[in-house]
Amino acid sequence: MARIDLNADLGEGFGVWRLGDDDAMLGIVTSANVACGFHAGDPAGLLRVCRSAAERGVRIGAQVSYRDLAGFGRRFIDVAADDLAADVAYQIGALQAIARASGSAVSYVKPHGALYNTIVTHRDQAAAVAEAVRMVDPALPVLGMAGSVFFDEAARRGLRTVAEAFADRAYRADGQLVSRREPGAVLHDPAAIAERVVGMVTSGRVGAVDGTSIAVRVESVCVHGDSPDAVQIATAVRDRLEAAGVEIGAFG
Amino acid sequence: MARIDLNADLGEGFGVWRLGDDDAMLGIVTSANVACGFHAGDPAGLLRVCRSAAERGVRIGAQVSYRDLAGFGRRFIDVAADDLAADVAYQIGALQAIARASGSAVSYVKPHGALYNTIVTHRDQAAAVAEAVRMVDPALPVLGMAGSVFFDEAARRGLRTVAEAFADRAYRADGQLVSRREPGAVLHDPAAIAERVVGMVTSGRVGAVDGTSIAVRVESVCVHGDSPDAVQIATAVRDRLEAAGVEIGAFG
Amino acid sequence: MARIDLNADLGEGFGVWRLGDDDAMLGIVTSANVACGFHAGDPAGLLRVCRSAAERGVRIGAQVSYRDLAGFGRRFIDVAADDLAADVAYQIGALQAIARASGSAVSYVKPHGALYNTIVTHRDQAAAVAEAVRMVDPALPVLGMAGSVFFDEAARRGLRTVAEAFADRAYRADGQLVSRREPGAVLHDPAAIAERVVGMVTSGRVGAVDGTSIAVRVESVCVHGDSPDAVQIATAVRDRLEAAGVEIGAFG
Amino acid sequence: MARIDLNADLGEGFGVWRLGDDDAMLGIVTSANVACGFHAGDPAGLLRVCRSAAERGVRIGAQVSYRDLAGFGRRFIDVAADDLAADVAYQIGALQAIARASGSAVSYVKPHGALYNTIVTHRDQAAAVAEAVRMVDPALPVLGMAGSVFFDEAARRGLRTVAEAFADRAYRADGQLVSRREPGAVLHDPAAIAERVVGMVTSGRVGAVDGTSIAVRVESVCVHGDSPDAVQIATAVRDRLEAAGVEIGAFG
Repeated sequence: MARIDLNADLGEGFGVWRLGDDDAMLGIVTSANVACGFHAGDPAGLLRVCRSAAERGVRIGAQVSYRDLAGFGRRFIDVAADDLAADVAYQIGALQAIARASGSAVSYVKPHGALYNTIVTHRDQAAAVAEAVRMVDPALPVLGMAGSVFFDEAARRGLRTVAEAFADRAYRADGQLVSRREPGAVLHDPAAIAERVVGMVTSGRVGAVDGTSIAVRVESVCVHGDSPDAVQIATAVRDRLEAAGVEIGAFG
Repeated sequence: MARIDLNADLGEGFGVWRLGDDDAMLGIVTSANVACGFHAGDPAGLLRVCRSAAERGVRIGAQVSYRDLAGFGRRFIDVAADDLAADVAYQIGALQAIARASGSAVSYVKPHGALYNTIVTHRDQAAAVAEAVRMVDPALPVLGMAGSVFFDEAARRGLRTVAEAFADRAYRADGQLVSRREPGAVLHDPAAIAERVVGMVTSGRVGAVDGTSIAVRVESVCVHGDSPDAVQIATAVRDRLEAAGVEIGAFG
Repeated sequence: MARIDLNADLGEGFGVWRLGDDDAMLGIVTSANVACGFHAGDPAGLLRVCRSAAERGVRIGAQVSYRDLAGFGRRFIDVAADDLAADVAYQIGALQAIARASGSAVSYVKPHGALYNTIVTHRDQAAAVAEAVRMVDPALPVLGMAGSVFFDEAARRGLRTVAEAFADRAYRADGQLVSRREPGAVLHDPAAIAERVVGMVTSGRVGAVDGTSIAVRVESVCVHGDSPDAVQIATAVRDRLEAAGVEIGAFG
Repeated sequence: MARIDLNADLGEGFGVWRLGDDDAMLGIVTSANVACGFHAGDPAGLLRVCRSAAERGVRIGAQVSYRDLAGFGRRFIDVAADDLAADVAYQIGALQAIARASGSAVSYVKPHGALYNTIVTHRDQAAAVAEAVRMVDPALPVLGMAGSVFFDEAARRGLRTVAEAFADRAYRADGQLVSRREPGAVLHDPAAIAERVVGMVTSGRVGAVDGTSIAVRVESVCVHGDSPDAVQIATAVRDRLEAAGVEIGAFG
């Protein structure tokens, strides 16, 4: 039977500010990419979401980022590799302690936002992130894009790479995501998104924007947690997967 | 033979900014209270000082603080206990990862600045700091003032408390420090400071400002790292202790 | 005919994070206390709210705060007077430029959160805030609590003081607010709140928690912008005032 | 008689951290590029340096930057134009209030670090910075590189552009600076630097790295304030200019 992990970004408030419905999402996903304080996440808020995740058996990942609260980590920063590696190690450790305090642990690392996008192709920063994970704990898997320079650097260091697909993003024929600046980059219809995810998970293929069918390597599906209809879409994805006989469970 | 630990605050720069002579101090002390990013310490700078400490066999402690870069953690903040506990856990974890990346580990926790002073008497914040240490790792000792509410809260949670004395600070007859706002609160003569430390370590007593001799519990002596004559004073203390036959070594 | 100003806190998001419904509140109030970046308010968000205020003829005030994004300025910080004065001057100037860029100007200064509460009684910090206003522009009025040490320090420097009352807060017999930690400190029924405000404005008196009637000096009424029913309450207050023949307009 | 302005970056500490010798530099330069809090500069420190500048008759400029304390503004950030414009306006205003509190005023704007370098060629960010200056005060001149896209955008908005040359940097034959990553990019010999500056100021020409002589437009010369030998170099430049009969004075 097919089996798939569902992941979402959580803990992305800061102080009085909230973003998304963490409680609802924790009832849907199997892996929570919890912010680490650099793009979002004050420690008390992180502890709350880690405790909720621990109670509900949802696995915790460290969602590491550029240091950029004002920009929510969505802006490329030309940070030197040594500085970036230390920044990432710092964030992983911070969340490890918070997770431990909640009776759980950090089980994987996933880069956030502009850092995620940058290290698909940026060799120095990709190597810095991979090196940070290795320095802190080489047994931690990394979640990211198959075919990315980041996965290449991670694999060179013996890290386990877990490939994810995006439930609501359009793909190009070369397997990369359509840029958010282009029309049609983000899908919105819950039923269509759910159907598409089932196809990716059961057949390993998805329709690209040019109409061709492309192969996707997918061990986890990312559902977004902060859009207005996030909970509805994530629920549709999960329900449709279960209806198709796919087991929802954390990656191995 | 008597034996004593020497500790100093290190890693207290931020980005381009430096404070104190970390390299020189690492040649003198046996325990380095390394900043954790909330009052000072960018991750890359922390990694550098942890690597130096690891190379030189100096033990690393997490110097936790209020979140206050602009005030260097020297201003009381009326932060709620739950928030403070999470802030402290976050900082300990962050430095644990940095220490691990340097081939070492965090061996103890020492509060910094205004937080240090506040939890001598502030029950809620003292409990929050102690609880944070317990949640992250109950085997971590805490460094602080004998007789403080912090030590009381730490002991209630089964944490090991390590009492420190201050090489260059005047004591009141009740064992508390003379406030920095009063004249004579800080001693400056290296030879006098060194002599005084030898007395504390070998006899367990020190002369208070009123001329009386008081008992001090001391397992570690704090030497400051950021004053202009810090290295000279720390060297005098260490040399004089060794001349008196006291072994300099990390607390057990 | 009686005339009253209505003020509310606006611009209190930060980056991706939003708080309250600024657009709706700008349709109700005559004075907008706009955050200045220290407890909330990224520059681009501040520019947006200042432009909306300018378009709708709502006056802009600088809502100055302790430097505390993580705590939303709600925690007392024991900052030295010189540092606080500079922090406040910096914030006023920052918002002045943003207001100017929006075709408007800063017309008054109102302290936020813990700073507001602290300088009701804390002489040094009250003097620092008043001195900052004087140094930047002695023609700027300050909005605050009648009878506060802050008003005393402001008046000593020749600043105009504008007394405000709180629409939804209970008063003690001595004219101070009932602490939020006590039951009944915050009122919730829109109709009752509106009725109470009309009484304050038209009679200069309000019922205290002990049942006595006390005098209140009120040139502006503060309505909150960030509670779930904020818009409903503010609308009720405005409607009820107008029904009672009170003119709603900025203070003179 | 030739006349030239000397400018340097000042106020670049933060809290307890200091950088460079502001007092010494204020005795040499005629224009102080004062940090605005985004890459350096806590408000109290900024007030101190503005007061010193005011006392000594040194003009104050707003040295605006990316929001990046950890990186000292030396890292490119891919910030959107609208956000950058608001960030720059905020910084100018903040320093205007601090300068006013010191009895002076902001007389010009100079971008810092990575922002300075980026807007030599980056159209959107250059336009954002120019637009920010125009929105806050179109009478404020901007200091920068002749031939830059920034100057083009500033001129289109009617801003006065003041061209500066760098005392200690090598030039390429095309008039751009040799990258700091290349050998010989930074000159170190005070006498040679001083001689070179005199040549630039009196002849409008300088020798490029390939041996050719190129024209430079120069109304102000930037001397660095934070290198170990900064004061010595700046003094040599000033003395040599005066010996050559060049008047040292703020640009008109």
